[in-house]
Amino acid sequence: MSQSAPKGLRLHIGLFGRRNVGKSSLLNAITRQQVAIVSNVAGTTTDPVEKPMELLPLGPVLFIDTAGVDDVGALGEMRIARTRAVFDRTDLGILVAAGGEWGSFETELLAALTARQVPVLVVMNKLDQGRASDTLTAELAAKKIPLVHTAALNGEGIAELKQAIVAQTPADFLTSPAIISDLVGPGELAVLVVPIDKEAPKGRLILPQVQTIRDLLDGDAMSLVVKERELRHALDQLTSPPKLVVTDSQAFLKVAADVPPEVKLTSFSILFSRCKGDLLTQVEGALAIDRLQPGDRVLMAEACAHHPIGEDIGRVKIPRWLTQYVGGQLAFTHVQGHDFPPDLHEYQLVIQCGSCMLNRREVLSRILRCREAGVPITNYGLAISYSLGIFTRALSPFPAALELLHSADQGRCEGR
Amino acid sequence: MSQSAPKGLRLHIGLFGRRNVGKSSLLNAITRQQVAIVSNVAGTTTDPVEKPMELLPLGPVLFIDTAGVDDVGALGEMRIARTRAVFDRTDLGILVAAGGEWGSFETELLAALTARQVPVLVVMNKLDQGRASDTLTAELAAKKIPLVHTAALNGEGIAELKQAIVAQTPADFLTSPAIISDLVGPGELAVLVVPIDKEAPKGRLILPQVQTIRDLLDGDAMSLVVKERELRHALDQLTSPPKLVVTDSQAFLKVAADVPPEVKLTSFSILFSRCKGDLLTQVEGALAIDRLQPGDRVLMAEACAHHPIGEDIGRVKIPRWLTQYVGGQLAFTHVQGHDFPPDLHEYQLVIQCGSCMLNRREVLSRILRCREAGVPITNYGLAISYSLGIFTRALSPFPAALELLHSADQGRCEGR
Repeated sequence: MSQSAPKGLRLHIGLFGRRNVGKSSLLNAITRQQVAIVSNVAGTTTDPVEKPMELLPLGPVLFIDTAGVDDVGALGEMRIARTRAVFDRTDLGILVAAGGEWGSFETELLAALTARQVPVLVVMNKLDQGRASDTLTAELAAKKIPLVHTAALNGEGIAELKQAIVAQTPADFLTSPAIISDLVGPGELAVLVVPIDKEAPKGRLILPQVQTIRDLLDGDAMSLVVKERELRHALDQLTSPPKLVVTDSQAFLKVAADVPPEVKLTSFSILFSRCKGDLLTQVEGALAIDRLQPGDRVLMAEACAHHPIGEDIGRVKIPRWLTQYVGGQLAFTHVQGHDFPPDLHEYQLVIQCGSCMLNRREVLSRILRCREAGVPITNYGLAISYSLGIFTRALSPFPAALELLHSADQGRCEGR
Repeated sequence: MSQSAPKGLRLHIGLFGRRNVGKSSLLNAITRQQVAIVSNVAGTTTDPVEKPMELLPLGPVLFIDTAGVDDVGALGEMRIARTRAVFDRTDLGILVAAGGEWGSFETELLAALTARQVPVLVVMNKLDQGRASDTLTAELAAKKIPLVHTAALNGEGIAELKQAIVAQTPADFLTSPAIISDLVGPGELAVLVVPIDKEAPKGRLILPQVQTIRDLLDGDAMSLVVKERELRHALDQLTSPPKLVVTDSQAFLKVAADVPPEVKLTSFSILFSRCKGDLLTQVEGALAIDRLQPGDRVLMAEACAHHPIGEDIGRVKIPRWLTQYVGGQLAFTHVQGHDFPPDLHEYQLVIQCGSCMLNRREVLSRILRCREAGVPITNYGLAISYSLGIFTRALSPFPAALELLHSADQGRCEGR
């Protein structure tokens, strides 16, 4: 994926700062790859170095590692000019200082970036050599500019830095272009299965259903909207099979039985895992269900604060299906809205809802926090289809996910 | 319609008060029919008289004209008991007093009705003989009980009384049961044509579209949602023609051309005229377009305060189509939200939007006010289909409307 995204669509992250504050080491720490020459001689990085990479869970980014802007002499002048030119293509600026040192140089650089309305964050690297002063800390806080302390060489603060990057990334780069319209082309038809249960709001459809219908219309495609009971009859009304069937996850088993095996099938919340979160990470997360033991702790995170009625999906159905799969009791913790526990280590699995009420930034932050804590994260539709034994079927529209599944299976076989 | 509505579904309106306050005259004035014996001898009405009738624009109601509750003697006792029994089946109580007279009797009757949580309004009839005291007026206002002064015999205050009846009618009786599900049966399919123009909110569908899809699901029916460009292709995908095609009114002409003539066709706003307003009154109102002259004043009433962009339906398209039909300039006045001018006499036509954002009570109040002012009222979809010459086609799903149209045509021919 990293190789195929056109450069123009990548988030351009510019790394700025004096020589020898550790910009390249930071880059290495963030990406865990050796992409720049690192030494402790000031000014090692000369021309801006562009490194395209996949920064999980953000997606494709382009890091621009600039030369130290305070470089001296004739060659230095050229470097400075080139570095300043980087401002113009920077979507997100990271201003790096080190050891608590902050002078008019940093102040001017920050002013130059904010004057261009470039979202920016400040990294105080080499925290063992000194931290940001109280004055600086207060000043940045007043300007709502995030400040992160790091020690790039031993990885300290890198998780916080990644969170800050997600937090400061402009919204344009967080919005996935399509819910479904890349899967169902112009003139093609998707069948949308919308059960009407007690939790369905009176006289309405829930947001992901509406957004899916709209995305199909935007892509010149069509949707046939039916309840699960009428699905088979609906398929009979069509002269040819639909391109895709999308169901509410709650009706997955019945729908999987009624849809011919050659027709691709998924759920609304899996579509939303893709556009609001990161499908591959959450597919990987679902595989962790296999490793759950009775007594394990599962965090259920639901974005909307709806009042649970009857057979609530998050409170009753998923816990029941997971318990059946694991063959013993699990301990479920439920959080709603923007609540998300600061410490995730006690959980063996996090299951996030479809997140139609959250923006992508928030879901990606959660995914990132789970990654840092080493806790697998999946979502409602993925967990349901996995525990009901129709995971491969539910991922049929997504070749990359199937590939991941395939290699995970091979890994498991080889491990035996 | 009046004859076919089961008694249990009618709004039961109980008329209460002393003998000879003019309850029966009021009833006659409201309904403009002679349904009760009227004389000026106290206690003419004996047993409660039930009169089913069509109270426009509310629909089918049952008036229960009770005997005077203060009747004396043995026969009177029985009448009082029967009258009190009427309390139990009263959905809306009208307490009638006369000539400004108000005593402990009226106070107790009012207390008895409000204790039963029956919505109530007070009529001070025979206003020429005296009006409600300031104390009584303030007391009723504090309890939010409407007070209307009338002179039933000469019709004074009757329009206000009808408005008060609409205002006090319990919501249950104002909610039409179906948007579309009575037109498209279980297992049947409706095609919904949803153009995506500049005014469509990003990533969403507008409310009447969502509500229509939901109503179809609630009725075990299906909807095929398409843009107007894909409509013909969508119809080709179906093994048999749809039961009904519903289009956004803006695409009426293109859709009418693409839908086979034997398939019924209407628009979202015509569906909403039926469930939020009164279809027949608004169909009648559309016929007034034929009588419009250049220079006439037309009131455009739009419920939602959306910011008009580009080719706005209410600001640009309908005015253009109407002007073309009339063959000369018309003077359009636009109101939004809950604004509705107090004086309607200056208008030759009122055109109300689909009103998905208004409750039915408000639309019915407007219809009533137009009736009282003698100003025809129609709605967006009806006005559009009339001015585009596809009125009969747009009413094809509604036999009662077609019948009205047919008799109007005959009336016109006979008038020649």
